[in-house]
Amino acid sequence: MKSPIPDYLAEVLGASAGTGEGAVADYIPELAKADPDRFGVTISTIDGVLYSAGDADVEFSIQSISKPFVYALALADRGLDGVLAKVGVEPSGDAFNELSLEPGTGRPRNPMINAGAIATHSLAGAPGLDAAERLERVVAGLSAFAGRRLEVDEQVCASELETAHRNLALAHILRSYDILEEDPTQVVAGYTRQCSLLVSTRDLAVMAATLANGGRQPITGEQIVPPRVARQVLSVMTTCGMYDAAGDWVTTVGIPAKSGVAGGLIGALPGQVGVATFSPRLDAHGNSVRGVHLFGRMSDDMGLHLMDVPAPSRSVLRKVRRFDDDGRSAIVFQLQGSLGFTTAEVVLRAVVEATPVTERVVFDIERLQSVDRVGRVMLLEVVRRLSLDGREVLFLDPDGVIPDPEPGDGGALRVVRSREELRAQRGGA
Amino acid sequence: MKSPIPDYLAEVLGASAGTGEGAVADYIPELAKADPDRFGVTISTIDGVLYSAGDADVEFSIQSISKPFVYALALADRGLDGVLAKVGVEPSGDAFNELSLEPGTGRPRNPMINAGAIATHSLAGAPGLDAAERLERVVAGLSAFAGRRLEVDEQVCASELETAHRNLALAHILRSYDILEEDPTQVVAGYTRQCSLLVSTRDLAVMAATLANGGRQPITGEQIVPPRVARQVLSVMTTCGMYDAAGDWVTTVGIPAKSGVAGGLIGALPGQVGVATFSPRLDAHGNSVRGVHLFGRMSDDMGLHLMDVPAPSRSVLRKVRRFDDDGRSAIVFQLQGSLGFTTAEVVLRAVVEATPVTERVVFDIERLQSVDRVGRVMLLEVVRRLSLDGREVLFLDPDGVIPDPEPGDGGALRVVRSREELRAQRGGA
Amino acid sequence: MKSPIPDYLAEVLGASAGTGEGAVADYIPELAKADPDRFGVTISTIDGVLYSAGDADVEFSIQSISKPFVYALALADRGLDGVLAKVGVEPSGDAFNELSLEPGTGRPRNPMINAGAIATHSLAGAPGLDAAERLERVVAGLSAFAGRRLEVDEQVCASELETAHRNLALAHILRSYDILEEDPTQVVAGYTRQCSLLVSTRDLAVMAATLANGGRQPITGEQIVPPRVARQVLSVMTTCGMYDAAGDWVTTVGIPAKSGVAGGLIGALPGQVGVATFSPRLDAHGNSVRGVHLFGRMSDDMGLHLMDVPAPSRSVLRKVRRFDDDGRSAIVFQLQGSLGFTTAEVVLRAVVEATPVTERVVFDIERLQSVDRVGRVMLLEVVRRLSLDGREVLFLDPDGVIPDPEPGDGGALRVVRSREELRAQRGGA
Amino acid sequence: MKSPIPDYLAEVLGASAGTGEGAVADYIPELAKADPDRFGVTISTIDGVLYSAGDADVEFSIQSISKPFVYALALADRGLDGVLAKVGVEPSGDAFNELSLEPGTGRPRNPMINAGAIATHSLAGAPGLDAAERLERVVAGLSAFAGRRLEVDEQVCASELETAHRNLALAHILRSYDILEEDPTQVVAGYTRQCSLLVSTRDLAVMAATLANGGRQPITGEQIVPPRVARQVLSVMTTCGMYDAAGDWVTTVGIPAKSGVAGGLIGALPGQVGVATFSPRLDAHGNSVRGVHLFGRMSDDMGLHLMDVPAPSRSVLRKVRRFDDDGRSAIVFQLQGSLGFTTAEVVLRAVVEATPVTERVVFDIERLQSVDRVGRVMLLEVVRRLSLDGREVLFLDPDGVIPDPEPGDGGALRVVRSREELRAQRGGA
Repeated sequence: MKSPIPDYLAEVLGASAGTGEGAVADYIPELAKADPDRFGVTISTIDGVLYSAGDADVEFSIQSISKPFVYALALADRGLDGVLAKVGVEPSGDAFNELSLEPGTGRPRNPMINAGAIATHSLAGAPGLDAAERLERVVAGLSAFAGRRLEVDEQVCASELETAHRNLALAHILRSYDILEEDPTQVVAGYTRQCSLLVSTRDLAVMAATLANGGRQPITGEQIVPPRVARQVLSVMTTCGMYDAAGDWVTTVGIPAKSGVAGGLIGALPGQVGVATFSPRLDAHGNSVRGVHLFGRMSDDMGLHLMDVPAPSRSVLRKVRRFDDDGRSAIVFQLQGSLGFTTAEVVLRAVVEATPVTERVVFDIERLQSVDRVGRVMLLEVVRRLSLDGREVLFLDPDGVIPDPEPGDGGALRVVRSREELRAQRGGA
Repeated sequence: MKSPIPDYLAEVLGASAGTGEGAVADYIPELAKADPDRFGVTISTIDGVLYSAGDADVEFSIQSISKPFVYALALADRGLDGVLAKVGVEPSGDAFNELSLEPGTGRPRNPMINAGAIATHSLAGAPGLDAAERLERVVAGLSAFAGRRLEVDEQVCASELETAHRNLALAHILRSYDILEEDPTQVVAGYTRQCSLLVSTRDLAVMAATLANGGRQPITGEQIVPPRVARQVLSVMTTCGMYDAAGDWVTTVGIPAKSGVAGGLIGALPGQVGVATFSPRLDAHGNSVRGVHLFGRMSDDMGLHLMDVPAPSRSVLRKVRRFDDDGRSAIVFQLQGSLGFTTAEVVLRAVVEATPVTERVVFDIERLQSVDRVGRVMLLEVVRRLSLDGREVLFLDPDGVIPDPEPGDGGALRVVRSREELRAQRGGA
Repeated sequence: MKSPIPDYLAEVLGASAGTGEGAVADYIPELAKADPDRFGVTISTIDGVLYSAGDADVEFSIQSISKPFVYALALADRGLDGVLAKVGVEPSGDAFNELSLEPGTGRPRNPMINAGAIATHSLAGAPGLDAAERLERVVAGLSAFAGRRLEVDEQVCASELETAHRNLALAHILRSYDILEEDPTQVVAGYTRQCSLLVSTRDLAVMAATLANGGRQPITGEQIVPPRVARQVLSVMTTCGMYDAAGDWVTTVGIPAKSGVAGGLIGALPGQVGVATFSPRLDAHGNSVRGVHLFGRMSDDMGLHLMDVPAPSRSVLRKVRRFDDDGRSAIVFQLQGSLGFTTAEVVLRAVVEATPVTERVVFDIERLQSVDRVGRVMLLEVVRRLSLDGREVLFLDPDGVIPDPEPGDGGALRVVRSREELRAQRGGA
Repeated sequence: MKSPIPDYLAEVLGASAGTGEGAVADYIPELAKADPDRFGVTISTIDGVLYSAGDADVEFSIQSISKPFVYALALADRGLDGVLAKVGVEPSGDAFNELSLEPGTGRPRNPMINAGAIATHSLAGAPGLDAAERLERVVAGLSAFAGRRLEVDEQVCASELETAHRNLALAHILRSYDILEEDPTQVVAGYTRQCSLLVSTRDLAVMAATLANGGRQPITGEQIVPPRVARQVLSVMTTCGMYDAAGDWVTTVGIPAKSGVAGGLIGALPGQVGVATFSPRLDAHGNSVRGVHLFGRMSDDMGLHLMDVPAPSRSVLRKVRRFDDDGRSAIVFQLQGSLGFTTAEVVLRAVVEATPVTERVVFDIERLQSVDRVGRVMLLEVVRRLSLDGREVLFLDPDGVIPDPEPGDGGALRVVRSREELRAQRGGA
């Protein structure tokens, strides 16, 4: 059997290719040379499987799509507060090349506008690096996200540098506010090289998947940035990633995203996928026309919208069974699915209602699919409270779904690995 | 056993109460009278269980928290395009009482600023209603969200009306642009009554949970607005709900939210919970100081941030088993957990790798916890493709997890309800 | 002989009529009905002689041209500080119907934008007048400027009131800031009547000439507002009268001016003339296309630009003559032209150089054309200083050009009315 | 006798010195070193006489006061249209160091803000000059205004260059819009040298007087820029010279002006005086506190406000006399004072009323003080029309007040130089 996913991608690619609208960026000759009809898409799962269609291997300059990744590097290197002192997180409502600084402090509104991205570039790596070291930190970091060494398109870079007047202007203003503490000219030179790194949609999809995967690169397995950093970056992409079309994007597509002027566009859905498209024709906001269309289609078809309510689950409580065991009343709660706050609350409620009449409580957690931090804490708190109420509590956990369970202060818990052992326990009581 | 959740809520309430910062809104005397030390919180699950602590039953005027709900009513009554023609969805970056209209059209930037909310009020109900009918549509709609008839605080309403100069100004400007097509004075009168409806955190938590639950009221079970509307409202709350602190809120708390000047604050996490707090002291953005603090704490403790990557799940593929059955090769894929795009992709990949060598394919879906639209579509497409490749495909689905499965064009599928039946099938082949 | 001025006006009218550009204001039906080809001009001297060409007697609604005159009334009635507390004097750089309020206070930037004009309307007359009394103060005041009772165009007024949404919005915002202390609806009603008063270019030219004449109506001779008020109004017209084209107007035309949306345009050059044109076609700034053109032509032809350096004058010192009179040295300074700071300084300088050698000093001021306050003060100070140095000082002033001359502390002065008397004086010494 | 003007200046200097408010500019160390108590004033007449008090000879850097003069040089070198294409003339309402560019074109709003002044610097001299040549044009031009070679304060210049980040930013933005066509770094270097030129109030007063004198340097007599350029510069100073306090300045002081951050302040009243003050303490607008106070005092005392209506003149018509001369009726109009549009109109009116009954018309213009272009044109038109009506027209003009009078098409005029000649003419007729 052939996987239907590439077929699906080919189909939506075709459907989105119809539009001949938009124009290739022409503010520098090198970008204007781009073939306007190139069109590619790649989806990367968070365990590193890639599906592509169209011109997925064509390389183009990363441009503004570098911004969230360098923001991630800066956050990893300087800490959240260190970066927030220099660059904000509020949407600007402004077009992509406008000055948008906080009155008084000169702090760029967010790291996705040029002013913020220039400041962010200077925050990657340790303070005090020279310009070459700073640039190497950025290139190495982006390469780590991509899983391969990325190279600069020297022609694009030279072309951009020649007309980098706005960025130089921004850098000088940032320098005047001490947002930038280094030589503005060198920072812009470094930032321009950053934007000129060559990538394909394959690279970008994996990079996006790394953010969706809590900062761990799906293929190399390297933890590029901590989960808290990935969360921060995705949050900022949600409100600031699509320039002044942020609200439209969040309502219709609902995937944290970032676009670049060379035609790239990425989306990253936490815990799910990274997606990248490439089509150089841009709309008035500076976003890829066909990329935006394709993302809308995929969000609808694949249910990837952040605000889509998940499908109703079967109850976390598969069965509740009571029995009398040698004169001792007992109850078994068989759990299934994911245990998080919402589902743990259901368990907890059932226990509250049921416990008064039993002496022994068994949680059969063999069918639990996943357990997050708060689900674990809540279940163990239930165990603790049951213990303090004089109940004997057991986990039936053949696969170690909840490792090292510690019910805490005053709690007691026995873990059994099989039904046989459970039965033996029962007999032994 | 006593549920630990109220204890938890009481604990975080205490921790957040420490701060005496902020000031009660004083632009009208009735609000200035509020007891600044009131503090309450309620959490509502999407199946309608409420947990509260503190002053959860104290009533206060809903104020701006009415905005997302009336936006939902307008979307339900006029359709997305009908509402978008009059009110945008872009964050404004402006403070809560400023004019923020799109140049040229006069369209308010979003429904969470006053200009947008006034326009939205006039869009609830059918066109052509008179002012009293329009207001009744709004009150009845909000009451449906709350699950009880809400009443106006006549003193607050009268007090607000006396000083409604800014809202009157906004309404007249909107009228000048034909965004408002009704008498501005009457619309402001209706909008002021809307804002003066009395609610408690219990009401608000259930109302928020209704949005989190795809528009279905958790207690009454009524579908107040369609799921697509709830998604739109949550999206707009994400980018526009917290005035000019939207970016800060999304990064730190990460829950679609809305605050009101009387001290209320709600959050709604799709598929999970509705939360409401009440504390009248406001910060400079007009948001409840202790409410913001409490939400931050709960988001962290309970893992409610939108961008938090879910806990790693056990693979959707519990077991893959091959056997030879009377000379016919067969393979069984035992699935567990949730089937959506991400997990369906894993199944699909396994099938692609495995199928060439078997003649019969069984999907044991008894342990599937949930199946969303795209998961269903993908699995059935796999069935179809396997059929076309000449395979015999069966679902073992005792509980009807996938109702009415239709593999479509050229596909064939047999569903069996028990292992015995499966064994019989096998024998019968 | 026929005066060449009407011929000149007819000629420039013809030259400016060529352009068919611009469009009649169409935001209300009554204005849209205006005949776009009407074109008239009137010049009023500050002694009340009128020269006209074209449609000088056609009546049209005064609209925004009422603003400077009502500002004058408010200044006269409430004092400069009383008005400045509510309305500023800074150019706004904004288009004519935009909100342009000072952040924080809500004070309109100047009285020539609508927000400022609405506030100004409420400042005409004493505090506490009711709406009808306030309106009567305004109508009576404007009528005094025009020298005849002005009447409201009731159709225009009714039409404007129906679509006065923006002005109502502005009034409500001003009320919210307490800039307006009266009922916004009534103030807008009064302001709309003010704008609907019917005038011709003859009326407007005389009204403008009144401002140019220090507030004294050239025909009736009535002092409508004090000179200091007229100066304030002309100053504000200079920087704020032509909406966002103020800089362009000042550089090219250089005459304090104000335009109205019905097609009127006035200019007032201090001490010289009032000019008014009427042509309903407006440019993008809302100014009359042909009016602007005509003013440019007149400014050039007639040397009316504020910054035009006056023609070089013959020296204020016509002759300085020394002689010996019966053994007493004497000197006569024969003055001519205007005596102000600049010319008094020349006199003073000559006296400083000349006096050491004479015993008697005569100022022959028969040929002085005018003497302003500072010229008088400076000349009398010279007299005082000469007296203190022991000189005998005389004025030969047959026509009483300097009435009641008092050289002050320690000064002595004899005034003679004829050369004969002077000769007698000389003999008598 | 001692001139009272220095005494007056000393007195107002003392009165204005009282205020210890304001603070020395401290954005660069060199300016912060300035002695805050320095205070000087100089008045220059337009014939080059200087009056000073206080620290009139102390040198300080010219800073922004260079802007109007370099604007004058650019206008002289590139023409009005050439400069308008790059720099506008509209007030910006912005503070002195803000970006204030026209949307779309990037054209600075006016030449008095930094962006406009930087662009203006690059427009001085011919296109294509190298940076050193451009700078020499600027320094030579400013020196010509001052009447002596000005020198750069190298320490101030070096200090400014070190912190010229904002100006570099502006220059790069201007370069990005092609407003600036040269290397931004070199233009800023040149502009910074321009601002670092050392001047005293004596220099500045003469420079201002040059503008007031139609571009002719009062002392050297050199025509530095054409009169039309001086008029343009004074117009722009009126609306844009005092940053965001322009309206306040025009209403209260009413003199075209420009301030500099080192504490200088100049005013230029067309046809009258140039004034300069120096006091380093600045107000929040960046204007010298004591300079502003002093200017207000002088404007009041000396009647220098642009909008002050001039003192009433004696009528331009001194006498009208009719007589019968050997059977031929004749009329003599004796004129006095200044002949401009306003006064010529009076003459013209008298002639229109009087002429039907006479055959010979004499204009006795011996007592005319000045005649401007339009006055001359109007009087000669009267002559022409009288000729065409069959009248004989004579000028009695002993001093050649109206040189080369040509009444034009169909006109005839005889000029006599004395009453004797007039009498002889009469006899000869």
